[in-house]
Amino acid sequence: MSFLKLSLPQAPDRYDYECVVVGAGPAGLTAALYLARYRVDVAVVTEAIGGEMALAPLVDDYPGLPGLTGSEMTRRFEEHVRRYKVPIITGERMVGLEREGDRWAVVTASGNRYSCYALILAIGSRRRKLGVPGEEKLIGRGVSYCATCDGPLFEGKTVAVVGGGNAALSSALYLASIARKVYLIHRREQFRAFPHYVEMARRSGRIELLLNHVVERILGEDRVTGVQVRNLVENASYTLPLDGVFVEIGSEPPRELLEPMGLELDDEGRVVVKPDMSTNLPGVFAAGEVAGGPCKYKFDQILTAAAEGAIAADAAYKYILGLRGKL
Amino acid sequence: MSFLKLSLPQAPDRYDYECVVVGAGPAGLTAALYLARYRVDVAVVTEAIGGEMALAPLVDDYPGLPGLTGSEMTRRFEEHVRRYKVPIITGERMVGLEREGDRWAVVTASGNRYSCYALILAIGSRRRKLGVPGEEKLIGRGVSYCATCDGPLFEGKTVAVVGGGNAALSSALYLASIARKVYLIHRREQFRAFPHYVEMARRSGRIELLLNHVVERILGEDRVTGVQVRNLVENASYTLPLDGVFVEIGSEPPRELLEPMGLELDDEGRVVVKPDMSTNLPGVFAAGEVAGGPCKYKFDQILTAAAEGAIAADAAYKYILGLRGKL
Repeated sequence: MSFLKLSLPQAPDRYDYECVVVGAGPAGLTAALYLARYRVDVAVVTEAIGGEMALAPLVDDYPGLPGLTGSEMTRRFEEHVRRYKVPIITGERMVGLEREGDRWAVVTASGNRYSCYALILAIGSRRRKLGVPGEEKLIGRGVSYCATCDGPLFEGKTVAVVGGGNAALSSALYLASIARKVYLIHRREQFRAFPHYVEMARRSGRIELLLNHVVERILGEDRVTGVQVRNLVENASYTLPLDGVFVEIGSEPPRELLEPMGLELDDEGRVVVKPDMSTNLPGVFAAGEVAGGPCKYKFDQILTAAAEGAIAADAAYKYILGLRGKL
Repeated sequence: MSFLKLSLPQAPDRYDYECVVVGAGPAGLTAALYLARYRVDVAVVTEAIGGEMALAPLVDDYPGLPGLTGSEMTRRFEEHVRRYKVPIITGERMVGLEREGDRWAVVTASGNRYSCYALILAIGSRRRKLGVPGEEKLIGRGVSYCATCDGPLFEGKTVAVVGGGNAALSSALYLASIARKVYLIHRREQFRAFPHYVEMARRSGRIELLLNHVVERILGEDRVTGVQVRNLVENASYTLPLDGVFVEIGSEPPRELLEPMGLELDDEGRVVVKPDMSTNLPGVFAAGEVAGGPCKYKFDQILTAAAEGAIAADAAYKYILGLRGKL
């Protein structure tokens, strides 16, 4: 969501709800849909609608809706939720969370406070970027952060994968079954990935390993045409002609926001969730890319984020039912 | 899937694949879609296409595809998978699983054997039925096994929920927010559900508890018009006029199939899965309603089944990658 422009927050009718969903990517919108169907008094508070989903050039792995752009997919999710008349309050960036008796207050950058019994955090995570010239402007034009999602667009092409962990290696192996040629660019001498992935990459006829190499610049105007890489051993730069660059160096939820809330985080900085998407804080649930921990298989797809949103909504509904019983 | 007519199996081109998916409900079809995108050599082996999804009168909780019938939803899932040219072999009922070296053989009732390195079990479960006259013919015509799915169709109506566990109580509470009147019919004096659910049901102005009651017959020709119930204490039967009956007495996977395979099952007879949907058998994954265990939040939706299918496919792909590395 960090890529999207901030719009000014419109004034909502009110600031107190039974449940507030923060974020409006697939997890947040689906949570809102399920809560509205349960007749929970719910609002969505978000910077923008769609999250990372809105940026995808082509989504063909959400079953039943083949071949849509990310923005079309976002429009369909949003329309579905709006049928249930859920208020979606945009232009609001969460900056803190405070406990108020048996309620939570979501504090936003604009100074508003949204009060609720149950909170669903669906704020996503930020793909780690290379931070090199050309990267930002070529996202969706040859620069991708998801081989599973965008790989099929590179049939017979030449691509590079940047990274040295399991995500990078498995992306390279997968892309080697589609692309003509795959460069695997890694800044170190050794990989952190499973040895058998590394072994398979070494034996693949289509993967060329560029160890001790870093990407200095992504080249191209409308589409990626190549990268400028530096060989760190020889300390020399050169150009590699390419059709696509897959950046697979991990993702990070906004730690500076999550840590002060008192949420338990895993090694990657994701919020530790139980199978029902509950967190260590009572009434606070997390869903989608912001959620992690040992109970969750990390596979960041629109489909899996949506399913986690549905589960969080069901669990939050039961939590609210319990409070209603005590009221 | 047990409701669907068996078609005669057509002869497939071959019987050996890298991966076989058994079942073609939302979990199985999604697993096939993901595996095909990963270029795994995959086939679907199934009795029929759609599973329980095909029977739903209205699906409005799969985000992005509002207001479809179950058969329309099934058609969209199937079409999406067929774009990837995955063979879907119908008319085949799995009756056993045998180990053959590092491969599995799926044995079907027709005597065929489908061989694979990785197997994804997505055979669903059977909703427990009351087994009373009128039930079978009125499914989707007032008889429902899912309040979350079908509740919104009963706005302002009179309905009954049958059962005494958490599913029955939470369904009754949810329906009380939609329907005019809810009868909660339970054969015993006491509920097995959470006490606060029971307390809320007792205090709800809209839920009438019929304890020590059993349903003897569901009445109606084209639509449910009522039920014949028996008061077990007074040993007397009478008619209750109704618009809908929600049967919430659990579901059961086919234990007679799963147990002899050596799969670890949970208390409900579901296959115990880890977060990556792997089971206690190497290379065997389970997804959708057949999967259970402590790592999984039980919430049987098309969306959650599909997400589990995607996760199982990703994990099976990595398992196959490992074997390819050794080949």
